[in-house]
Amino acid sequence: MTEQNRRLVLAQRPTGLVDESTTRLETVPVPELEEGQALVKVRYLSIDPTIRTWMDDVPSYLPPIQIDEVIRSGGVGEIVESRSAAYQPGQMVFGMTGWQDYVVIDGGDGAMQVLPDGVPPGMAIGILGVTGMTAYFGMTDVGRVADGDVVVVSGAAGATGSAAGQIAKIKGAKKVVGIAGGAEKCAHIVDELGFDEAIDYKNEDVAKRLRQACPDGIDLYFDNVGGSILNDCLANLAMRGCVVLCGAISTYNSDEPPPGPSNYLTLLVNRGRMEGFIILDYLDRFPDAQIEMAGWITEGKIKSSEHVVEGLEKAPDALNLLFSGGNTGKVIVAL
Amino acid sequence: MTEQNRRLVLAQRPTGLVDESTTRLETVPVPELEEGQALVKVRYLSIDPTIRTWMDDVPSYLPPIQIDEVIRSGGVGEIVESRSAAYQPGQMVFGMTGWQDYVVIDGGDGAMQVLPDGVPPGMAIGILGVTGMTAYFGMTDVGRVADGDVVVVSGAAGATGSAAGQIAKIKGAKKVVGIAGGAEKCAHIVDELGFDEAIDYKNEDVAKRLRQACPDGIDLYFDNVGGSILNDCLANLAMRGCVVLCGAISTYNSDEPPPGPSNYLTLLVNRGRMEGFIILDYLDRFPDAQIEMAGWITEGKIKSSEHVVEGLEKAPDALNLLFSGGNTGKVIVAL
Repeated sequence: MTEQNRRLVLAQRPTGLVDESTTRLETVPVPELEEGQALVKVRYLSIDPTIRTWMDDVPSYLPPIQIDEVIRSGGVGEIVESRSAAYQPGQMVFGMTGWQDYVVIDGGDGAMQVLPDGVPPGMAIGILGVTGMTAYFGMTDVGRVADGDVVVVSGAAGATGSAAGQIAKIKGAKKVVGIAGGAEKCAHIVDELGFDEAIDYKNEDVAKRLRQACPDGIDLYFDNVGGSILNDCLANLAMRGCVVLCGAISTYNSDEPPPGPSNYLTLLVNRGRMEGFIILDYLDRFPDAQIEMAGWITEGKIKSSEHVVEGLEKAPDALNLLFSGGNTGKVIVAL
Repeated sequence: MTEQNRRLVLAQRPTGLVDESTTRLETVPVPELEEGQALVKVRYLSIDPTIRTWMDDVPSYLPPIQIDEVIRSGGVGEIVESRSAAYQPGQMVFGMTGWQDYVVIDGGDGAMQVLPDGVPPGMAIGILGVTGMTAYFGMTDVGRVADGDVVVVSGAAGATGSAAGQIAKIKGAKKVVGIAGGAEKCAHIVDELGFDEAIDYKNEDVAKRLRQACPDGIDLYFDNVGGSILNDCLANLAMRGCVVLCGAISTYNSDEPPPGPSNYLTLLVNRGRMEGFIILDYLDRFPDAQIEMAGWITEGKIKSSEHVVEGLEKAPDALNLLFSGGNTGKVIVAL
């Protein structure tokens, strides 16, 4: 092999947003394949808020990324060489690639899946991938969205939030309100994605607008952001309302533990439930959900959009987009 | 009628603990009974933390007590006169009496229940009443306590907490840890009530002791207190752990919204659930639970104790006992 692998490793743990000191670009030779292995040329990286949490040295649902380790990330790539019966050169695969040009995979353990024919790579890591599955299982299995529900979704112009809101409508929600930052995103989720109403948290009083938009309270709040928006939604929770904890993007760059939701006692008075989930627990149920989701895509019932950033070296900037709100839809880095 | 009814009405809403300005003792004539009514001479008042929350002018699961209205309270009394076929003089009844010597009840609406033979009045408003039922349904229905669970209960020497911990043991919990204030209460719950371990929050580092007592995390935390203890338990929640929100006694006397539990994101990372309940929702299931509870009492599997305060005029002080931690077991005012 003469190929060189460019990769971004964790140089030092960030405080706040990642910057040029967080990652280091290294170039190392691509190793010779052993029997049973295959070589993947990475084409697209899936940029997800959770990557930022893995950079902190705190216990979470996966171990922290270690210093000098390649940044952990989902992605899509192409098999360019194979000594495994499971993979043929030319096949597209998706799974955990890391922020790098090449990854050697072991054919035996199913570490990466072959992309089905006709599925665009962006969808494999977006609406049909972990992002869409997070929206699906969070809304249906954890949130148990039901006919007639009043649903609020934060981060509603983001990849997961936009899918979550559309799934709620498909599943019979009476009203779906999205919270997003800026007039453009708010228009997008209402005009393009079919949300009933949007709240612009950058320019509106969220607590007041929630009371207007949901006068009988919120039956299901799908929380991607945490912080004050979570607290405002708790204050307006309907009887037996539910908060699905999907993420807390407003807190991921903070060194301090965030202030907790002081309105949590509405859970008591209103017999509410607040529940978290991690999508990795649902891997065995992905196939059925992907079939249902693919059907909705075909029927035009659910739309997804991508925000593509070019170049491996731009991956840290792409990650920061999620926190500045610079994206609409799924952030993908094209290599 | 020549009887006079002494009653405590809400004179002004308290800030913090109730004091002499909160209630006003009035004496008014007992009204003539109308057809279908009965007169109850109140014998015992049930003193519960929730009474303090009803004194605030904030929405809750029941309307606030109005100024000049009798303080709302459960109690036990004796029928002393009846123009209702449903009640006979000499019968003991329990239900909502208010803080007063006499209450006129309407026989038709089942507002008060006749005390079954052999049930001591203290038990009717304690372990077999709302207090015990709160522990029962909180632990079983909301908390879904299961064989092998590690359970933590705060307010563990109080009426509800002490019952909750014992019910957890009966239902198969592997370990039940009680959090209480002071060495005496801690000894009581371990030596008398069969808790496996006690943490003295007044003299010990709760977070550290929780890690020692529950090295594999907490499967079920039954929260009576809120505040920092809730936050410490969240930090130590086991995978798929559950927090049952029963009360938040540490916050009821505060004018400010309490700080929220900043460790709530363990609910996400550990796939946890935090859920509140109000015992009024379970009224129709009381009879079966009371039969089960009565069986445990007879078999000596569950113990309850009472802290009796004498005199109607002492009811406000009795309420404050709950917040100073001056009681062990159920606080009752004997009239």
